[in-house]
Amino acid sequence: MNAVPESLRAIAQRSAAQATVGRSVNDIDTPALVVDLDAMERNLAQMAAYAKAHNLRLRPHAKMHKSAELARLQMAHGAVGVCVQKTDEALALARAGVTDIYISNEVIAEAKLQRLAQGVRELPTRFGIAVDSALGVLRLVQALRQAQVVGVARMDVFVEIDVGQGRCGVAPGEPAVDLAQLIAQHPVLRFAGLQAYHGGAQHHRDPAERAHAIAEAAWACALTRARLLAAGFESPLITGAGTGTFVLETASHVWGELQVGSYLFMDADYARNEAAPLAPVFEHALFVKSQVMSRNQQHAVCDAGHKSHAIESGLPMVWSPPGLVFANGSDEHGVLRAARAGEHLPALGDTVWLVPGHCDPTVNLHDVLLGVRGGLLKGKVERVIRVDARGAVG
Amino acid sequence: MNAVPESLRAIAQRSAAQATVGRSVNDIDTPALVVDLDAMERNLAQMAAYAKAHNLRLRPHAKMHKSAELARLQMAHGAVGVCVQKTDEALALARAGVTDIYISNEVIAEAKLQRLAQGVRELPTRFGIAVDSALGVLRLVQALRQAQVVGVARMDVFVEIDVGQGRCGVAPGEPAVDLAQLIAQHPVLRFAGLQAYHGGAQHHRDPAERAHAIAEAAWACALTRARLLAAGFESPLITGAGTGTFVLETASHVWGELQVGSYLFMDADYARNEAAPLAPVFEHALFVKSQVMSRNQQHAVCDAGHKSHAIESGLPMVWSPPGLVFANGSDEHGVLRAARAGEHLPALGDTVWLVPGHCDPTVNLHDVLLGVRGGLLKGKVERVIRVDARGAVG
Repeated sequence: MNAVPESLRAIAQRSAAQATVGRSVNDIDTPALVVDLDAMERNLAQMAAYAKAHNLRLRPHAKMHKSAELARLQMAHGAVGVCVQKTDEALALARAGVTDIYISNEVIAEAKLQRLAQGVRELPTRFGIAVDSALGVLRLVQALRQAQVVGVARMDVFVEIDVGQGRCGVAPGEPAVDLAQLIAQHPVLRFAGLQAYHGGAQHHRDPAERAHAIAEAAWACALTRARLLAAGFESPLITGAGTGTFVLETASHVWGELQVGSYLFMDADYARNEAAPLAPVFEHALFVKSQVMSRNQQHAVCDAGHKSHAIESGLPMVWSPPGLVFANGSDEHGVLRAARAGEHLPALGDTVWLVPGHCDPTVNLHDVLLGVRGGLLKGKVERVIRVDARGAVG
Repeated sequence: MNAVPESLRAIAQRSAAQATVGRSVNDIDTPALVVDLDAMERNLAQMAAYAKAHNLRLRPHAKMHKSAELARLQMAHGAVGVCVQKTDEALALARAGVTDIYISNEVIAEAKLQRLAQGVRELPTRFGIAVDSALGVLRLVQALRQAQVVGVARMDVFVEIDVGQGRCGVAPGEPAVDLAQLIAQHPVLRFAGLQAYHGGAQHHRDPAERAHAIAEAAWACALTRARLLAAGFESPLITGAGTGTFVLETASHVWGELQVGSYLFMDADYARNEAAPLAPVFEHALFVKSQVMSRNQQHAVCDAGHKSHAIESGLPMVWSPPGLVFANGSDEHGVLRAARAGEHLPALGDTVWLVPGHCDPTVNLHDVLLGVRGGLLKGKVERVIRVDARGAVG
């Protein structure tokens, strides 16, 4: 098995990123994904304080940033660990030193479970996983056995229940109890609780709709918990929630752990949600730096299209200069128009800062994030943050 | 300037890909981007024969595949070179041995033009570029001078005219002549012709709408050509066209070079176009192999979401098994439903083959393509095709 060597392009790209450290934000070549470290750290502190004040475990979702450095930073600020969605994300972050990782998703492929079991055996990381089928439990046990993982409670297993998303998860109630009982038959596993995440609810614009969806999800969780208690299980940890709804899960007193991810960076899509009363407000901390490379009387065209930022949840917002609207220019271009007639269009060569529509798939397009200290206009590049699990879809 | 070493994840991922060579398609871990080599080669041959029969230069767009291996394959089948959209794409492909590369897009950043000029000096590749501003011409000349690129006609420069896309390009007619005259003042450059691509027209579903758009584009080209001839220029090469419209550009007898890209792989979006009479039909050759990892009575969920395939031009089509419709399951999931009540849903662990909605940004999510010979059901992995310019957005 021969490793294909890294391409010259990737080496050059990362060297170029590294070379910007200590330099002005003006020296960053475009398009580049830039983190406003000051804003990010305020978001980090705010969520840590929120979880602490409400006596909740915080397990941020690292599917969003895919970075071991940021996962460790979250854990240094009170997080018990992180979630990921994919086996190879978990292994990439574990190899880069993240010590507590929960795959909040189902894995059925034997090859993946074998890789994971090897990680459980060899790495100093505590791993967890979600299941929604007996096959998922049995294949996991088989993979751990093949990798000679022995002992008691070597892996945490959460049973996913469908709380309204209509995607993965067993139905609330008895089906979850059946799976918990199957898990309990295997001492190598530990039944760790319920995975209960309502992805769709995160993006309802109207706070009343979000409240309604999470109320139904809470009911599904409470029902399942009651059945588990009746079957002799202890009260399970219920883990879930996202940046769009976590105040609702908190208020329900049903969830014990928050899986918020986007709060760290905040994207344009979340900003389009109408804020709920009393919800903390997070700042945009993730930006695409782009440059105007074509210009006429009607519009300017910047060099960042949807190979630089994901648009499946909506187009980016133009952060700076003010008064511009972004129109889809396809893979490599963004068309910038004046929001109102007569407003100023940027000139050829000018910098344009965008807030991506959706941070998770945007980060996944880039190998590195450039961390800037001191603001986007006058700041300096403080560090290069590696996206360790970029492209780790397996 | 220290290069950041490649992540363990990336090395592991590429090794894993390399390890599949010679093995059955069934052994490919999911999600993976798979090329049906037999279908791709038929597409390749068909387009090469078409261009030859119509006495047209073929310069396929490598922004689609970003692979030096595929660019060389296209050139071995009659292409005069390839196009790209970005400076770093051009340099990545040039360093991997592609000898004729045209950046069919504007570049204004001095840092990029300096990188490019170094490439012109050091690499055995013929480079071309598009311009739509005097600043673009002047900065290019300055960068070539700084890199000590001397001599005559060291770089081909095309003037982009806006033929109806409403994005980049000067207006047809005199503005293009002005730029051609500016280019002609600099012996290091060669005025090579007109860039005339109508991106929007590619995706009109109705062939009559496509015909109308390309008729207007042809008029804009013919007008500009007449003005150039009147100003003493020779008849310029007009380059453009895409997979959705190239029969129309051909029929106009205005274009001399075709920049088709997607014909090699064909995505679900192009397949949704209603075919024009007499247009060659290309086969789907690019697939996402995915696996069912959750299942209930209503639907199955596969492990490929929009971090595995781009959905901004529409959702993927389910190629196999038949009778399924793909619904958006977000970043890491696809929800598969029966197209008609009572149809069979795949079981947990089953393979599902998808045709991506849009090939260009899908390829850009992956480091490698797995080239399969002998079909998706019984074939073997013949080779790993590197996506050399993945993420090269600069």
